[in-house]
Order: sequence, then C-alpha cells, then structure tokens
Amino acid sequence: MTNTFTEKYTIPYYDCDAEGLLKVPTLIKMMIRTSGNQSDSLGVNAELLKSFNINWIITEHDLTIHSLPMSGDSVFVTTQAESYNKYFCYRKFWIHDSHRNELAVMESTFALMDNTTRKVHAVPDEVIVPFESEKTKRIKRGEKIPTLQSESINRSFDVSFWDIDDNHHVNNATYPAWMMDSMSYDFLISHVPSRVMIKFNKEIRYGEAVDSYIEEMDDNKTIHQIKSGADVCADGLIEWKKR
Amino acid sequence: MTNTFTEKYTIPYYDCDAEGLLKVPTLIKMMIRTSGNQSDSLGVNAELLKSFNINWIITEHDLTIHSLPMSGDSVFVTTQAESYNKYFCYRKFWIHDSHRNELAVMESTFALMDNTTRKVHAVPDEVIVPFESEKTKRIKRGEKIPTLQSESINRSFDVSFWDIDDNHHVNNATYPAWMMDSMSYDFLISHVPSRVMIKFNKEIRYGEAVDSYIEEMDDNKTIHQIKSGADVCADGLIEWKKR
Repeated sequence: MTNTFTEKYTIPYYDCDAEGLLKVPTLIKMMIRTSGNQSDSLGVNAELLKSFNINWIITEHDLTIHSLPMSGDSVFVTTQAESYNKYFCYRKFWIHDSHRNELAVMESTFALMDNTTRKVHAVPDEVIVPFESEKTKRIKRGEKIPTLQSESINRSFDVSFWDIDDNHHVNNATYPAWMMDSMSYDFLISHVPSRVMIKFNKEIRYGEAVDSYIEEMDDNKTIHQIKSGADVCADGLIEWKKR
Repeated sequence: MTNTFTEKYTIPYYDCDAEGLLKVPTLIKMMIRTSGNQSDSLGVNAELLKSFNINWIITEHDLTIHSLPMSGDSVFVTTQAESYNKYFCYRKFWIHDSHRNELAVMESTFALMDNTTRKVHAVPDEVIVPFESEKTKRIKRGEKIPTLQSESINRSFDVSFWDIDDNHHVNNATYPAWMMDSMSYDFLISHVPSRVMIKFNKEIRYGEAVDSYIEEMDDNKTIHQIKSGADVCADGLIEWKKR
C-alpha cells in the first residue's frame, strides 16, 4: 500500500494575489514542498541524492483547481508516490480545506537529473523503495498539449536571481508564473485557472533570454510556449474561469 | 506597556535561494505578515480600515541581518508597535532562531493611504489605540541614504502581476528584490546583505516601466534607486558580506 503524507499549512497574505487568492505558482510550490518533506521523512534526503550526484527534476504537471484558498486559510496538502518505471516517478498531490473539501489536485512526473551531465539518470532502488510505490513498465503519457501556431512573442522575461532553485536552474513553478503573467492584468484580475498543464522540455539557466508565446483557443483556453532562443523549454495549456 | 506579538514559522524551501538561505525579500514579507496578524488579533482588521477607506503603506525599512535562516528552519517572528504621531506609526520586528538567538531586526515606518486619493491620511485613534503604543510629537528621521550620482540604468523591470498586492500597487518587498536582482549572479551567489535600508517615495502601479540604478561605494556598500520614468520611487542602501 502506497504511503501518503499530509501537512497543514496556513496561507500567508504575501502568497496571495491582489484579490486575496493564493497565487497559482505558489500552490504548485506548496505541493512540491510536501513531496520534499515526505522524502526527508523517509531518509531520501539531500545526502542520499548527493551520493548518486543526482537531484529531482519535474517533466510534467497536470493541475486541476476547483477553488483557490485565501490569505489566512489553513489547508491540508497531501502527496503520494503512485508508481514508477526505469526513468520516471509518478506523483499525486491534493489540497483540501479545513472541512476536507478537495480544492486542487495535481499529477506530476518526476525524474532524476545527473548534476554534472544535466541528463536524466535511471531511478536507483535506494531512492524509490522507501515510498512503497508500484513498479511498472508502463510509461504514462499525459494529455497532449495542442501545438502552438503563433510566431509572435507575447512577452519577454529576464531570468531573476529569485527564480533559480537548488538545481541552479529556473524552478518549475516559474514557468506557469511566466505563462500567466503574459496575460493582461485586466484578464488576470477577473479570471483564475481551473486547469494548468505543463510539459518541461529543457532547463533554463541564469542569463538566458526567455520569450513567452501565447495563443488563445475557444472555451477560455490558452496555449503557451516558453522559449529560450529557438529552443522550446516548456509547453503549457491553461483553462480559465471567472473569479 | 506596548504589546509584542510573536509567531512561529517554518521556512519553506521555495522561499530560499539557490544556496538554501531565506530570500531577503521574503524575510521582509514574513515580518510584515506578523504585523498584519497582530492587527487582526486586536480587531484592527480589513473591515475597520475599509470604514475609513484607508490601507497601510510603508514609507521606510531599516533591516539588519546577522544571519539568514535556512530551508526547513523554524523561526520566531516578533513585532511591536513602538510609537506613533499624527501621520506615522513606528514598528519594530525581530526574527529569532529556535534557541532564541536574534537573526534579524527591522525598524519600519508605516502610514495610512486613502484608497481614493492615494495620499497619506492622518492616523485615526480607532486604528492605533489597541496597540497601546506611545503617542509622540517626534517625527523619526531614519539614517540618510547617500545621493546616487550615476545616470546609467543597471537593469529594467516590467511590473509582474505577482508584484501587485491588495493595495493594487507594487508590494514593498518587490523593491529590495529588484535592487538585489540588479547585482550580478556571481555576486549574489557569494554575498548576502547584512543591512538593507529603503525609503519609499512613490507607489508604482501595474504597467509602469521600472528602471534600477546602482552605484558601488567602498566597504561592500551599494546605493540603489528605483525610478519610473523621471520619478524616484525608492532609494536604497545595501551593505553586503560574504556568505
């Protein structure tokens, strides 16, 4: 039986947007934090990863948001390492309010990066066995993100020192922050995402120039691409609803 | 006797930089959060401020950092409303580690902004009396920040949707984030601030273009200016030390 791991957390006002709702990039970071804390609790910590010269990276998120918590709300964040194969670990996350109503759920794909070659490293038994998750030969393929047709840049970003995490590259939660930030203020102040799908193709490091491309589809959907020069670093699909 | 108010907080990894130390802008936000929670606990809440059509703004921070906590550390954040006069409220903040060693201390000046005119509003008794702080005629003048002589822009920033707080302007902690982010990556990865002084002159709203000016002084000090067009929005002084 696969372990689950739950933490209670109270939302600081500074993790909320101008209208007092939790920032979506922070929601993702809160979820990921819980997986880090579960790993630490099982001894799958920084020292163990260092002994293999590897670190966790994320290749895919599929986040569904029913309702965003507000500043001051206490929530329960739960994670579970569902299954894994030679190269990929599949994880689920949930956020519940204090009445145990589900607010958001995310399915994510993790892999391990060799810190020197920056390439994916096979999952060592020592790193995955403690989670008691199911070993499978199946490779999960998330829902396809439609190909972006547009050739016009919506907005450009300079990588900030604050975007760099302990992998010394841009943190996974910065990509949805850039994608959302490429929409207009009037749109963002009146809409929130109900679903965010992201596929990460290439890491971005400090000093790279980042361009954000958008295409609006019907049904309140936007497709996104984050590029560094000619390289597609991430593809995204966001479904929106009125606040 | 002036009330103090303390909260315990565990530092999430995502509020830490690439080297695992708490991000200085988040340290400031953690302190400010505690003053908000103290205000709520005393009934000086959003509804009361709304009845006067006002909201708190900050005109000055003087932050001294002895040591930055790390990801996973638990800290105690304490605040105290020291004194006030007709227009300004003077507040102190401390961060202590779990052994009660002082890690950082900040003196800040708060004022109240009329939400419609965007101008400073006299402090109503209802908003300040519950803190039992000392009423004074004295206006505190923080240490002077040397005038920046340089005319060259070090870096430019677009205001992000994520920088906007519930005053619908750029949050006070974004200014030191911009000031620090204007230093080189190599410098930031090897240095941390030991003191950050900021004076806020003019609010910045979404859509404004922001330029960051820097001048290096001797003794590991840098002076900073954040401008929007010809307007000086904030002056800053940062003292640095090796990590």
